[in-house]
Amino acid sequence: MHEFYENLFTRHQETHDMPSNVRIWEWARNVFRLMFPERNSKKLLSVEAVRATFKIHENELYELLLKSKDCAACDHAKIVRNFFHALPDIYQQLLEDAQAMLDGDPAAKNLSEVIRTYPGFLAISLYRMAHQLWLDDVPLFPRILTEYAHERTGIDIHPGATIGRHFHIDHGTGLVIGETTIIGDYVKLYQGVTLGALSVDKFLAGQRRHPIIEDHVIIYAGATILGGETRIGRHAIIGGNVWLTSSVPAYTTVYHKSQVKFADPKIGL
Amino acid sequence: MHEFYENLFTRHQETHDMPSNVRIWEWARNVFRLMFPERNSKKLLSVEAVRATFKIHENELYELLLKSKDCAACDHAKIVRNFFHALPDIYQQLLEDAQAMLDGDPAAKNLSEVIRTYPGFLAISLYRMAHQLWLDDVPLFPRILTEYAHERTGIDIHPGATIGRHFHIDHGTGLVIGETTIIGDYVKLYQGVTLGALSVDKFLAGQRRHPIIEDHVIIYAGATILGGETRIGRHAIIGGNVWLTSSVPAYTTVYHKSQVKFADPKIGL
Amino acid sequence: MHEFYENLFTRHQETHDMPSNVRIWEWARNVFRLMFPERNSKKLLSVEAVRATFKIHENELYELLLKSKDCAACDHAKIVRNFFHALPDIYQQLLEDAQAMLDGDPAAKNLSEVIRTYPGFLAISLYRMAHQLWLDDVPLFPRILTEYAHERTGIDIHPGATIGRHFHIDHGTGLVIGETTIIGDYVKLYQGVTLGALSVDKFLAGQRRHPIIEDHVIIYAGATILGGETRIGRHAIIGGNVWLTSSVPAYTTVYHKSQVKFADPKIGL
Amino acid sequence: MHEFYENLFTRHQETHDMPSNVRIWEWARNVFRLMFPERNSKKLLSVEAVRATFKIHENELYELLLKSKDCAACDHAKIVRNFFHALPDIYQQLLEDAQAMLDGDPAAKNLSEVIRTYPGFLAISLYRMAHQLWLDDVPLFPRILTEYAHERTGIDIHPGATIGRHFHIDHGTGLVIGETTIIGDYVKLYQGVTLGALSVDKFLAGQRRHPIIEDHVIIYAGATILGGETRIGRHAIIGGNVWLTSSVPAYTTVYHKSQVKFADPKIGL
Amino acid sequence: MHEFYENLFTRHQETHDMPSNVRIWEWARNVFRLMFPERNSKKLLSVEAVRATFKIHENELYELLLKSKDCAACDHAKIVRNFFHALPDIYQQLLEDAQAMLDGDPAAKNLSEVIRTYPGFLAISLYRMAHQLWLDDVPLFPRILTEYAHERTGIDIHPGATIGRHFHIDHGTGLVIGETTIIGDYVKLYQGVTLGALSVDKFLAGQRRHPIIEDHVIIYAGATILGGETRIGRHAIIGGNVWLTSSVPAYTTVYHKSQVKFADPKIGL
Amino acid sequence: MHEFYENLFTRHQETHDMPSNVRIWEWARNVFRLMFPERNSKKLLSVEAVRATFKIHENELYELLLKSKDCAACDHAKIVRNFFHALPDIYQQLLEDAQAMLDGDPAAKNLSEVIRTYPGFLAISLYRMAHQLWLDDVPLFPRILTEYAHERTGIDIHPGATIGRHFHIDHGTGLVIGETTIIGDYVKLYQGVTLGALSVDKFLAGQRRHPIIEDHVIIYAGATILGGETRIGRHAIIGGNVWLTSSVPAYTTVYHKSQVKFADPKIGL
Repeated sequence: MHEFYENLFTRHQETHDMPSNVRIWEWARNVFRLMFPERNSKKLLSVEAVRATFKIHENELYELLLKSKDCAACDHAKIVRNFFHALPDIYQQLLEDAQAMLDGDPAAKNLSEVIRTYPGFLAISLYRMAHQLWLDDVPLFPRILTEYAHERTGIDIHPGATIGRHFHIDHGTGLVIGETTIIGDYVKLYQGVTLGALSVDKFLAGQRRHPIIEDHVIIYAGATILGGETRIGRHAIIGGNVWLTSSVPAYTTVYHKSQVKFADPKIGL
Repeated sequence: MHEFYENLFTRHQETHDMPSNVRIWEWARNVFRLMFPERNSKKLLSVEAVRATFKIHENELYELLLKSKDCAACDHAKIVRNFFHALPDIYQQLLEDAQAMLDGDPAAKNLSEVIRTYPGFLAISLYRMAHQLWLDDVPLFPRILTEYAHERTGIDIHPGATIGRHFHIDHGTGLVIGETTIIGDYVKLYQGVTLGALSVDKFLAGQRRHPIIEDHVIIYAGATILGGETRIGRHAIIGGNVWLTSSVPAYTTVYHKSQVKFADPKIGL
Repeated sequence: MHEFYENLFTRHQETHDMPSNVRIWEWARNVFRLMFPERNSKKLLSVEAVRATFKIHENELYELLLKSKDCAACDHAKIVRNFFHALPDIYQQLLEDAQAMLDGDPAAKNLSEVIRTYPGFLAISLYRMAHQLWLDDVPLFPRILTEYAHERTGIDIHPGATIGRHFHIDHGTGLVIGETTIIGDYVKLYQGVTLGALSVDKFLAGQRRHPIIEDHVIIYAGATILGGETRIGRHAIIGGNVWLTSSVPAYTTVYHKSQVKFADPKIGL
Repeated sequence: MHEFYENLFTRHQETHDMPSNVRIWEWARNVFRLMFPERNSKKLLSVEAVRATFKIHENELYELLLKSKDCAACDHAKIVRNFFHALPDIYQQLLEDAQAMLDGDPAAKNLSEVIRTYPGFLAISLYRMAHQLWLDDVPLFPRILTEYAHERTGIDIHPGATIGRHFHIDHGTGLVIGETTIIGDYVKLYQGVTLGALSVDKFLAGQRRHPIIEDHVIIYAGATILGGETRIGRHAIIGGNVWLTSSVPAYTTVYHKSQVKFADPKIGL
Repeated sequence: MHEFYENLFTRHQETHDMPSNVRIWEWARNVFRLMFPERNSKKLLSVEAVRATFKIHENELYELLLKSKDCAACDHAKIVRNFFHALPDIYQQLLEDAQAMLDGDPAAKNLSEVIRTYPGFLAISLYRMAHQLWLDDVPLFPRILTEYAHERTGIDIHPGATIGRHFHIDHGTGLVIGETTIIGDYVKLYQGVTLGALSVDKFLAGQRRHPIIEDHVIIYAGATILGGETRIGRHAIIGGNVWLTSSVPAYTTVYHKSQVKFADPKIGL
Repeated sequence: MHEFYENLFTRHQETHDMPSNVRIWEWARNVFRLMFPERNSKKLLSVEAVRATFKIHENELYELLLKSKDCAACDHAKIVRNFFHALPDIYQQLLEDAQAMLDGDPAAKNLSEVIRTYPGFLAISLYRMAHQLWLDDVPLFPRILTEYAHERTGIDIHPGATIGRHFHIDHGTGLVIGETTIIGDYVKLYQGVTLGALSVDKFLAGQRRHPIIEDHVIIYAGATILGGETRIGRHAIIGGNVWLTSSVPAYTTVYHKSQVKFADPKIGL
């Protein structure tokens, strides 16, 4: 037992000091709430107060990066500058995403409902913020942000993925979008869709292993699309529970047909 | 950048004041814990204390509704009265749901385990409370409640759905039940089941777009059943991963057969 | 209404006093953080402090068990002793699991990323702790721990399952592993996989109802494998969305082939 | 050192289980806020809600008493009944006290300022509640309540003291009122006044050891009045810093005259 | 009893909505910590971040004032502007106060100890902020701030008092400074000093009722100085426990001489 | 204004990083609760758990010292070792102090009441812990601990003072004990007593400036005793409100006699 304690003690000394996941989540949540006050009880009463709140979040990000030993070689100031410089465009994209979710879901009553309650909106928001940090090679933070969204929504988007505008996630639980996926504009994904890798040997790290989804594609619940060579052409519709490891041309519909048999239900399946 | 700050400032002024999601969740959680003290460390020591606690929750709901500008035209007192008047029946239904989950799951040891640990029980509880508010046309609150359940359990039940008694959800992650779904009594659903819409064009809002599931139906993991014309007859069994867009008669078993091929596993899939 | 209040009052009196779910979660989280300081901001500065922290957690578990009326007949001291005696091996297994997840996922950069952000790692950690309590017949606690993991990760592993070493969960949302499942070493499971029961009649409680997965098996996203007689042979590969209710020999590849049809996308599916 | 640990361990086992000071404070604070909503952000929206909140606090007091082993022989139900039966009169007295403080202090602007900010008002409120419990021989709770007030205000009133109506405390820091003190109506006390015991030998426990202060007396800052035989007659005025161990007739003024000397201030005092 | 509930209900409806004391305290504490980072764990990493934090606190004060119905007729924007415009000078005065406390107390090791631990420093800081709000006729807030200081330090300074520069409070518990007191520069006050009113009839409200203390005066522990006509001349020294209701010329020393008698200590006092 | 921001920014950069007052208070409070479980809801269930909890607090103190830049030159390990080595004796002294307070106060019912509710007991406890750190020249921590007690109790004991055994504080608000005071055994002090310095010129720092109080002395409320040459002989009794700047022989009684005059109370004082 003593050896075990010594092992843990060694680990405790070796472990890189780093801001806790919780602090990083809070930072991102605060930026998110600033952009979408529907999720935020604090009302800002002047343009100056808005601007000041951004500065505070800049200071906070800078401090989080400084404290992260994994990021010792980072250009902290540049990362912060780039992130907040990109934020107006991220905000614009998120408004379009919310609009896409409102337009595409008959159950949605108004934009406020989407912003306050749609898990897909939370997930794409955290992804878009995380992706900006990913582009500046910040270690660990981007993944911590998208895993926070994963935990809260069941939607697992790797921060390295590339996702176009007017993106619509419906329901979303179980959705997986891999690191090198490329998704066009006006794409709509349902719950349980996987955009994954065919083979996951470690030596492929750094290469494209995930599919390309072109503009205006719809992929229904539970479909699994794998592989770096797989490309789903524009305006294609992929039916639910489909399993696809090869490309599909534009304007195609792919579906999966179940066999229906009359059987004695007592036997069960 | 200044324009961005001004946009956000304008949004901050326009945003309807409304109780935060967190306060609405807490209200619902408190009502839930009052009915199921297994989830609640506070013990009430007299009938009077039980009754008083209900009154407190009535007051809280009334205040939440009053503070919600989206609900300015609501008859707040009537909503509150209806909700708490319906609660004894909701409670009875939830006890039956818990019993159904206990009866249908060999791994369940007793009712207490179901109530304390089954995500399906939490999800159906929040749905049944949210549905009552939905019936009284309360805006946003019902969805906030079911999305809270969605976040905690991965079970996404729209508050507008109609669900019968003795409802059994097993595991449940990824389960989706759409707005106009109708589910009978003694139905059992597994994880990853979608009861969704075939087509989700916005102009269908308000019409039935989701299937009807009759009494005693069982639907296994990952099955996807879509469309407002689709009706699953009583005592039907739908196998896992099935994709269904048309009706199925009573007492039918539908299943999905995978092809099994011997292949060189080195090639992968 | 008065009758309803009286019912609830009776329930409040009958309900077994027991530590709240939250306290039990906190205990487990503290043990977990002690082993993996990457998830813990408190640094222990001596071997003595590590040892002492274990003692504190022993005291806490003992107190939780003592306060649990369901566990009145337990040998509390023995449960505590066994748990902490087993912990060094659990820790070793978890390090191997983390290594397996790092080796098997090209997107993973280092062990620290796996430990801090992979939901599969959190889920297997709570399962391994819960399983040890399960082996000592502790009521309710094991399920409370695995449902905590389920809530946070969407990964639903029953504490009674048997899982070998070098276990790899990728993404994981929607994964279900039933009570009597047996899983070998070096197995890799993706999101949405169900290892479930064919028939779930209550009278089968206590019998094996779930499959056996041998060493080195890979099961892709959305596959459903059911039944106590079902055995997946070693080195088999089960493709995504496959539905399996019978055994598969070693070194087999099973996959599911979707039909691809060109269709007028306006018709939808 | 081991012996020390064993001592503490023994103490830990022997220590009576009892609700923590913090829980008892919270109960009292909640009752206080219910009566004085100026100190409470939660608004009650119906008479029913007011009544229900009282019931909740009754339940809470009952539970606190039940959990207190020192109070095993108490008639818990009677204590609770008496306390809440007395509350309307306590409330009335506190309104009069607040009015007295408003009338007597030119700096006070309105009743709301007194209720929200005057430490004397907080102290007399907790005293009046504690005194009611004292009358029913509740152990420890009364002292815990008045020491809470002592900690927050520096005003130390023993729960056993008897205090009349229209009581005015100004500033109040350092005020001490002993266990067997009797104070009439319309009395006004300043900061630093001591109404104490002349001799505090243990064998006097249970006897009157503190002075009697008749109606309409004013006692200025820093006066010390001691002894169970000491009686301050009605309408007497006791000057600041006076030291009194014998009685004073009605309508008397007692003051303390300092010697004023011209001296070289470099010497100091 | 029902009448009591109705009374309380009426009070609940009548009570002015106002930000809670706690929120007002937090605002002031945050401004204080921004000026004295020794009391604040959050480090600001750029001048911009400092400026932004001020803006946030401006926004917060503005919101607090807006929400306060007592302040409906206030010019909220002007109050905020004046407060933050005055802050640099308040800060300068507080630095001088801290220096005065360091210079005058041999036990003080350095400025950091004064700022972090001296109750006098906390009290004068909250007074100086409260006084600025008082000058702009803000209702209730100033008193809430100084009573917060009173509660934490036992030092009770009315926000209406006028206090010069280089002010030194030593120990301070029980110190009372009334509403119309005027204190010069380089004054030093010990614990238990009262600068109060001789007569406190309500009709004197608005008139000067408290003494004038000129520059360089020292007043020792427990001295009581009363009356609007009382003026303590510059460089006077007032001994401990002195009771003064008339003026004292400059450079005077006033002290109080106790009688010392040999007595049989068995008799006690 | 910009200059002000720059000043503050500079201060923010210069400020020594140090654990917050709150963290240091929590450490001390935890040690205190471990010794006096009456103030602690967590029950330790084995000697091992007691020992382990001490180790945790050792680790915590060590970490706090390490993080304190003011203590960069400290021998952290030695300070921690000495503190916990001294703790059994501190504990013994505190038990004696509690017993002294019980014996000397007729209002005290039992030891538990003293430990749970007497501010004097809290103050002497924090003093005795702080004094041990003071003996090892730890900067700032000792004062932070005694000021925490000062804030909660109004009792201001400098950590450098020397205090004997069986020490009794009654009520205590406003009590001040200076840095170089020496107090014997069985001494009893009331509220508002000052043991202070006659002259507080900075150049006296490091010299004895405060009185010596021999064994068995009693000092009543509001007495002020000043000066490093002042010695109060054993068994002396100092009456309330006395002002003393010179020594008093053993077995003396010193008291203060107020003048009592009949006067027209309408004139006031």
